[in-house]
Amino acid sequence: MLESRHLLFTYLHLAADTELTNSLAATGATCIAYETVEDKDGRLPLLAPMSEVAGKIATQAGAFMLEKPLGGRGILLGGVPGVAAANVMVIGGGVVGYHAAQVAIGMGATVYCFDRNITRLRDLDVAFAGRADTCFATTLAIEERLPEIDLVIGAVLVHGAKAPHVITRAQLGLMKPQAVLVDVSIDQGGCFETSKATTHTNPTYEVDGITHYCVANMPGAVPITSTYALTNATMPYAIQLANKGASQAIKDSAGLRLGLNCAAGHVTYQPVADAAGVPYVSPEQALSL
Amino acid sequence: MLESRHLLFTYLHLAADTELTNSLAATGATCIAYETVEDKDGRLPLLAPMSEVAGKIATQAGAFMLEKPLGGRGILLGGVPGVAAANVMVIGGGVVGYHAAQVAIGMGATVYCFDRNITRLRDLDVAFAGRADTCFATTLAIEERLPEIDLVIGAVLVHGAKAPHVITRAQLGLMKPQAVLVDVSIDQGGCFETSKATTHTNPTYEVDGITHYCVANMPGAVPITSTYALTNATMPYAIQLANKGASQAIKDSAGLRLGLNCAAGHVTYQPVADAAGVPYVSPEQALSL
Amino acid sequence: MLESRHLLFTYLHLAADTELTNSLAATGATCIAYETVEDKDGRLPLLAPMSEVAGKIATQAGAFMLEKPLGGRGILLGGVPGVAAANVMVIGGGVVGYHAAQVAIGMGATVYCFDRNITRLRDLDVAFAGRADTCFATTLAIEERLPEIDLVIGAVLVHGAKAPHVITRAQLGLMKPQAVLVDVSIDQGGCFETSKATTHTNPTYEVDGITHYCVANMPGAVPITSTYALTNATMPYAIQLANKGASQAIKDSAGLRLGLNCAAGHVTYQPVADAAGVPYVSPEQALSL
Amino acid sequence: MLESRHLLFTYLHLAADTELTNSLAATGATCIAYETVEDKDGRLPLLAPMSEVAGKIATQAGAFMLEKPLGGRGILLGGVPGVAAANVMVIGGGVVGYHAAQVAIGMGATVYCFDRNITRLRDLDVAFAGRADTCFATTLAIEERLPEIDLVIGAVLVHGAKAPHVITRAQLGLMKPQAVLVDVSIDQGGCFETSKATTHTNPTYEVDGITHYCVANMPGAVPITSTYALTNATMPYAIQLANKGASQAIKDSAGLRLGLNCAAGHVTYQPVADAAGVPYVSPEQALSL
Amino acid sequence: MLESRHLLFTYLHLAADTELTNSLAATGATCIAYETVEDKDGRLPLLAPMSEVAGKIATQAGAFMLEKPLGGRGILLGGVPGVAAANVMVIGGGVVGYHAAQVAIGMGATVYCFDRNITRLRDLDVAFAGRADTCFATTLAIEERLPEIDLVIGAVLVHGAKAPHVITRAQLGLMKPQAVLVDVSIDQGGCFETSKATTHTNPTYEVDGITHYCVANMPGAVPITSTYALTNATMPYAIQLANKGASQAIKDSAGLRLGLNCAAGHVTYQPVADAAGVPYVSPEQALSL
Amino acid sequence: MLESRHLLFTYLHLAADTELTNSLAATGATCIAYETVEDKDGRLPLLAPMSEVAGKIATQAGAFMLEKPLGGRGILLGGVPGVAAANVMVIGGGVVGYHAAQVAIGMGATVYCFDRNITRLRDLDVAFAGRADTCFATTLAIEERLPEIDLVIGAVLVHGAKAPHVITRAQLGLMKPQAVLVDVSIDQGGCFETSKATTHTNPTYEVDGITHYCVANMPGAVPITSTYALTNATMPYAIQLANKGASQAIKDSAGLRLGLNCAAGHVTYQPVADAAGVPYVSPEQALSL
Repeated sequence: MLESRHLLFTYLHLAADTELTNSLAATGATCIAYETVEDKDGRLPLLAPMSEVAGKIATQAGAFMLEKPLGGRGILLGGVPGVAAANVMVIGGGVVGYHAAQVAIGMGATVYCFDRNITRLRDLDVAFAGRADTCFATTLAIEERLPEIDLVIGAVLVHGAKAPHVITRAQLGLMKPQAVLVDVSIDQGGCFETSKATTHTNPTYEVDGITHYCVANMPGAVPITSTYALTNATMPYAIQLANKGASQAIKDSAGLRLGLNCAAGHVTYQPVADAAGVPYVSPEQALSL
Repeated sequence: MLESRHLLFTYLHLAADTELTNSLAATGATCIAYETVEDKDGRLPLLAPMSEVAGKIATQAGAFMLEKPLGGRGILLGGVPGVAAANVMVIGGGVVGYHAAQVAIGMGATVYCFDRNITRLRDLDVAFAGRADTCFATTLAIEERLPEIDLVIGAVLVHGAKAPHVITRAQLGLMKPQAVLVDVSIDQGGCFETSKATTHTNPTYEVDGITHYCVANMPGAVPITSTYALTNATMPYAIQLANKGASQAIKDSAGLRLGLNCAAGHVTYQPVADAAGVPYVSPEQALSL
Repeated sequence: MLESRHLLFTYLHLAADTELTNSLAATGATCIAYETVEDKDGRLPLLAPMSEVAGKIATQAGAFMLEKPLGGRGILLGGVPGVAAANVMVIGGGVVGYHAAQVAIGMGATVYCFDRNITRLRDLDVAFAGRADTCFATTLAIEERLPEIDLVIGAVLVHGAKAPHVITRAQLGLMKPQAVLVDVSIDQGGCFETSKATTHTNPTYEVDGITHYCVANMPGAVPITSTYALTNATMPYAIQLANKGASQAIKDSAGLRLGLNCAAGHVTYQPVADAAGVPYVSPEQALSL
Repeated sequence: MLESRHLLFTYLHLAADTELTNSLAATGATCIAYETVEDKDGRLPLLAPMSEVAGKIATQAGAFMLEKPLGGRGILLGGVPGVAAANVMVIGGGVVGYHAAQVAIGMGATVYCFDRNITRLRDLDVAFAGRADTCFATTLAIEERLPEIDLVIGAVLVHGAKAPHVITRAQLGLMKPQAVLVDVSIDQGGCFETSKATTHTNPTYEVDGITHYCVANMPGAVPITSTYALTNATMPYAIQLANKGASQAIKDSAGLRLGLNCAAGHVTYQPVADAAGVPYVSPEQALSL
Repeated sequence: MLESRHLLFTYLHLAADTELTNSLAATGATCIAYETVEDKDGRLPLLAPMSEVAGKIATQAGAFMLEKPLGGRGILLGGVPGVAAANVMVIGGGVVGYHAAQVAIGMGATVYCFDRNITRLRDLDVAFAGRADTCFATTLAIEERLPEIDLVIGAVLVHGAKAPHVITRAQLGLMKPQAVLVDVSIDQGGCFETSKATTHTNPTYEVDGITHYCVANMPGAVPITSTYALTNATMPYAIQLANKGASQAIKDSAGLRLGLNCAAGHVTYQPVADAAGVPYVSPEQALSL
Repeated sequence: MLESRHLLFTYLHLAADTELTNSLAATGATCIAYETVEDKDGRLPLLAPMSEVAGKIATQAGAFMLEKPLGGRGILLGGVPGVAAANVMVIGGGVVGYHAAQVAIGMGATVYCFDRNITRLRDLDVAFAGRADTCFATTLAIEERLPEIDLVIGAVLVHGAKAPHVITRAQLGLMKPQAVLVDVSIDQGGCFETSKATTHTNPTYEVDGITHYCVANMPGAVPITSTYALTNATMPYAIQLANKGASQAIKDSAGLRLGLNCAAGHVTYQPVADAAGVPYVSPEQALSL
């Protein structure tokens, strides 16, 4: 039903689906993918809302999964007077990790947030205001800390790439029995070697005595919040597209231009073209900007 | 296997089970019930740890149940930038309510904590440090606030009595669809008219479009934390009982004396004797203190 | 008394006054307007101190005006134990709005801060540390929230333009009787449709049962603080101007160059030239840089 | 219209009005004065809500009066980046002083809270969590600190007695010109030597260059908040009186008994009897308890 | 020079010095010891200020001693971005321990505060507001935590008795090399088996690779603060003694009576009489109250 | 031993040592100095970790030096209930000053943080969250505040230049006797006129009654923390150098290129070349990039 006069503005994820790419390009429609739009600092503004939601869900799911009937160690994340709180390791201090850590702090846990970017750790140090430790992420540092950890939140996202494995199967052996892993990177393949996607109906499984929570599309669990959050981010772009027309809006905004994946029958985003094995045509050429 | 030379020191809950009461009394053992021991301010020190655990679990369960696949509204307790947080009503500002509220605050929710004791509300006001509102609990005040609430934590505990109903079935009609009720008073019969006990396997059910979470014995979900918390509270009593012998320890401590439910073949706690329809014998008489 | 050898460095606000523009240009003096100097991020560093002061004054004025004898609803911004705090809506999350919100948070109010810039809302979310909700500003979102609001702070500033109306007269009907509006944008024409400038002697008036506080030049109420704040911002520019002479300082600093409104008999700032209907001459030409 | 079958339960303040005392006693009505009811710790639970309201109003009034057009120094309580905040001295760390200090802290001021009770200062030290200094109140300590203070909140309340003067006229000379004094003790005669009651219409006057704000009955400015706050505190007593009848309720509650000022034609509160020069009859005798 | 007409009101510490006891009694003077005066809750109000000072000094000394040149591990108490903070164990959650923990929290450390009184741990849990863990003190719990600890503050004070040993020499072997012990109980004999009093000139020594800081009379290091703190606490007693005379003041105040160690030639405090092997005479008898 | 095939990557500080410069250049090695590497915002990322450490050490040293036996006034930085905290002036709001201020805030002091950059003061105002005042640094403002200050932290760092004197000898006369100065700029020559470097063995000296703490290389006191902190910052550069080889890494990174001080026998950093009086050769030329 899609025709060349249409504008499609949504998540596309074409790189993984050549058939979809070719069909979509063939319609001639102007197709802008949320996930490749960039802001002027090179961030992905239409992915960020989902990261905020996912980070917060990750900790509340982790707290819940630590309960015994859910498969966890049977401990309370925040402890009680006289019983120390659980120890939480957040790997990745980006949007997901920051929000996961803030919820863990708020619930009373002792939190260690790991990242490889010292500048980011400095920003987090200010934002945490002394309520969590920031740690430089090395294999050694992670291995030294793992034996005392009750909950690990994996929040390692690499733009447009499969997530790296920050905990291997061998390293599971360093952990306490029934400690819980929550893999927020599961939509990008998972950041634990032993991760595989699960569902809300059957959210966890166990590997070597460690409970894994790897529910795909976590933000989908809170559609009201996620929809508002996403709309808040997409609205300004939608208004530009509506007011100016797609061509002019794309011409005026370098960030929106990076979102253009197909137009006028061509694939206009390099990685998608590469993945599909079709020629890349620049947005400027395709739209004669 | 219990004999008159034995000392039994644990939760007994005899009032609800006449047969158990009679059998236990018949053994002649000295039986002290955790749940009726009092401290010198008239509080129940061996119930408090379970209340702390239950209060914290209640909010993390409520946050999780607000997710769509779990039956809730599909909103995120803490909101995200640009989307306001959920509104949480905690009814009852005792140990359970305080801890439930603190977790909700920590997760970023907007929290209203209701109680009928203005002195307690003043203490909570200091402890919350401006991060939650304290509200005097009247039917009117609760009904005015209910339409904007996403999560209600019922934490109304009356010493040694069935919990009163603080939300009736009719009042459910004031609430948003798929709002969530968590009833921490379920072990005392529940504080919502529509509550009935559930299990971890099947934790929620729906009445008039409102999701109910009424899992019995919530602290049982985190046995490691609960065991330490309980032992921390019982240990000083256990040491006295071991060092002095039961009779002397009970003689020396008015609070422990209130815990004595059966001794030397008699029922020594008035409400249990009344419930079983057997004569009450005072601890002093029974143990010849 | 002003001659061509003079340098005038202060607020000018020429766009609104053609006669003043022409007279000033005619003197031949070098005239730099505080309000058009920009820093390297495109912000207005010599307006910011006044925004900080105005934001803080706005909330303390609003709290005071909520008192009955001042025309307000007769409620206390921060509430007391047992009585929930007032609800405050801050529209505009810039410098004014941030400071207005922080004072409202500090006084114990429940605060909702609205803005249309999601990136700004993310920064505010970190700065508020969970003590206020950030909301994306749409007409719908504002209308849904208005009925529960006791105090609205209007802090919508658009660089060099008349403030838009974020609350219309019709929307006043959604509000509680004697709710209070404080319009910090009044010096730019006001951001409520029903705003008109008032004075400290007679600060409020009522429209449709809603109390309006629209005192012009709010920072003028705290001259000691405002003077220091302004001097701290202007001093580094003044030192450059004194040390290097105006021409060289203007040549060296692109931001200062944007502040040049008149020089050598010419109008050197485009919008002022447009407003006065006189030819625009660039600073470079006028000063032969 | 008052008859012996009536129960009067409100603020009475009879000690200051012999004629009223005699007339009221003559009616034979049972008259309980809010202001002399005590709780089991000897506090005045029906005065406390008014103290909470008054303390919070005091600081917001003080902040407003520091503005130049209102008579103050022309400084902003909370300062702005680059300009230090105002210094606030709160004299009296009771309910009024605590709430006044918390608002001042929240608005960003530097706060020194004085009291003569070291145990109270320790409690305040915990509640302030490092955000205000607690100071032992001696004449010397107050005089040493006065020269740097911008705002003084006088919150010295002595049960049932005229407030002492904590700042004399001579000490005004130590202060900065146009510093502001707010006298919350004005209803008890004022705690500054130079205080005299003012009204909301004409709230301030100046003595020796120091601005005085001494509005009587400050809580009256926020009737909605004050009414709820007061009702929350009186309700439990009202319920007892209604359910049991006055005699039985007074018999059962020692605190309520202290509130009985007149009954069965007698004056039943010693200080009121003394002030009126009539014989004192105990509540027990008067009501034949 | 002391005669029977004199009143001596200061720290006496007679139990440890029989000769001093006898000489002092022989003078016939009325001698009140700060350290045995009690308040109405059984606390020692004239010891508390020194405990507050000592607790705060303990942590700042500990932080300093962790530096390499002072004998410590060479780590920074608060860590920096990317490097986790030090772990601090505070043993004893009384006045000393609370203040020691608060400074450690403020400096950014990860803090575990141990006590055997669960009620006290609950109060601390509120006061710490999630910024430190409270732990029930058992030998097992301490031994499990010791290997990860960088700094131990020993703050175990037992009224009028030698401090117990909470860390034995054998347990030093569980600790990291050059970890630091600070013994605030040193004036009561020390709460580590390996403690012996040191001086500011030579503050530390090493046992089994662990650095010990055991400076006697820590509050003496900050005489200005300590003097004010002590005077604030003693002043109300001094005023009573001066206004009423010693006999009447002692008669009126049960707490002051407990402070009377010698009077009219007798020893009037049981433990001191026992220690000196002289007959005990009650204050009432000695002063004919 | 250094040869032309070697890469030297460490602190070099060549500007002060011509002989070292010439010898190093003569080896032909590729020498990158930590202290001149810049990040893309023009900051010095390999100096920052040392600044973080030094700032935190400065306050804990200052707190300790305020003790009488160490030469200070004999006051406790954080005060105690009833005794106001010490006043701390931090001059310089950069990395050092921020961390010094945060520790002072955490220890309970009243803190004034001075800087000449109003934008930086705004950032600090947000980060301090109302717990410290930010002050614009002028001679007048410093002199007005000095008489009430107990501890001054000098944290004035100017990139690649000798620190300016922010307190002169004459200004010492404005201060309280035995107030403490801590000079964190001592490695750049000191920011107090009366500063001269000291050692951990003999850390303080007195000038005009003011205690000076000017220990050189403060981070050296906590080698474990400093080493991790530094390695976290240098690691990403080291990995690039190792993976790509020095030439390619320097070619790819403008920041690393600024760190190149000597290469292929040439001096490649202008200020070092100037200081040594040798010709400057650009990195591009020297390495034929």
